[in-house]
Amino acid sequence: MLVRVPPERNAVRLRASHSLIKVMAEPDRDSEIKHFAAIIKGIRFAMLTTLEDDGTLHSRPMATQDVEFDGDLWFFTRADSPKVSEASAHRQVNVSFADPDASKFVSASGTADLVRDREKLEQYWKPAYKVFFPQGLNDPELVLLKVKVHTAEYWDSANTKLGRAFDFARAYVTKDVSKLGQHAKIGL
Amino acid sequence: MLVRVPPERNAVRLRASHSLIKVMAEPDRDSEIKHFAAIIKGIRFAMLTTLEDDGTLHSRPMATQDVEFDGDLWFFTRADSPKVSEASAHRQVNVSFADPDASKFVSASGTADLVRDREKLEQYWKPAYKVFFPQGLNDPELVLLKVKVHTAEYWDSANTKLGRAFDFARAYVTKDVSKLGQHAKIGL
Repeated sequence: MLVRVPPERNAVRLRASHSLIKVMAEPDRDSEIKHFAAIIKGIRFAMLTTLEDDGTLHSRPMATQDVEFDGDLWFFTRADSPKVSEASAHRQVNVSFADPDASKFVSASGTADLVRDREKLEQYWKPAYKVFFPQGLNDPELVLLKVKVHTAEYWDSANTKLGRAFDFARAYVTKDVSKLGQHAKIGL
Repeated sequence: MLVRVPPERNAVRLRASHSLIKVMAEPDRDSEIKHFAAIIKGIRFAMLTTLEDDGTLHSRPMATQDVEFDGDLWFFTRADSPKVSEASAHRQVNVSFADPDASKFVSASGTADLVRDREKLEQYWKPAYKVFFPQGLNDPELVLLKVKVHTAEYWDSANTKLGRAFDFARAYVTKDVSKLGQHAKIGL
C-alpha cells in the first residue's frame, strides 16, 4: 500500500535535509582552521615538496614554527637554497606532517611566497636558529617561506577503526574505504 | 725556494686523487641501495606526493611493503583512486618517509608505474589488506603502484651534530649548513 505524504511535509523534510548537508559541507572557516591547528600542533618537522624544472618532485624536512596556525605555514630558509628557486618557479607546494607513532598524517596544499619583512622575521625568530644562520636576523640570505594553505587532508587511525573515510568538503560522504582510519579533507 | 716535483710523481698524485673522487662520487649502486634499504627499514608509512592537473601538489599516506628495498617502492592501491590518475598524467612522484622521534627524514624521487601482474600482486599481498580490499587478490580494482627511485636524500640528526650536510652524488661535498644533521643524497 502506497502512503501519500502531504507535499508540505515532504518540503519540510527536504529543507531540513538540505540545511543539514549545507552546515556539514560548509563549516565555518575559523573553526576549520582551529581544527587543523590542533591536528598539527606539536609536530616539529614537516616535509616540504616542490616541483623542479625538470618535473622531478623533491621534498625536504623543514622546522615548523611553534605558533598557532592561522591559515599560513612559515619556514625559515636561505634565499639561495634550491627549495626557494623551485617554489618561485612553481609556487604550488605541498607540506606534509607525519606522526607515525600516532598513525597521524597530514597533507596541506598551498601557494608559496618569500617574505623578507623584518617584523615577520623577528616574530618567528628563535636564538636556536643561530645554528643555521650564525648572523641571525642580519643574515642577508635569511628569508621566510610562507605557504598559504588552500586545502588540507588528514588521516588518523589511532582512535578510529581502519577503513573509515570522511570528506568535510563534500558533505561528510564516505568515499573511499581504502583509506586508513579517519580521513578528513578541509578547505581553508 | 721553489721545489720542483718530478712530473711522474705529479701524475701519480693526480691519478690517485682522481680515483679517490671517482670512488666517492660514484659509489657502487648495490651498496647504495642496501644503505637506503637500511634507512627506510621499519618505516611502515610513507607520504606519496603527486602533481594534479591544475598544478596542485597532493600527498597521502601509503603503507610500505615489509620487503628489502631493491630500487623500487611498491604500494597497493585502487586503480580508480585519484593518486593513480595523477601519477599516470605526471609520472614523476615523490615518496617521503618521516620518523620524527629519531629525527630521520627521507625524500625519494622517482617514476610511477601501475603494475597489475598477478605474480607481483601475490608476492606483496597480505591477508591484513582485506580490510581495504575485501575481494582480496580477485578485486578488479587492486593494483600496485611501483615507484622506481632515481634519487634519494636523507636527513638524520639523531646521532650527528646539527648543520652537517653530505651529498653522496657530488663527491661528498658539504654544501649547505642550513640542513639538519647528516644529509646524504643517493643516486640510485
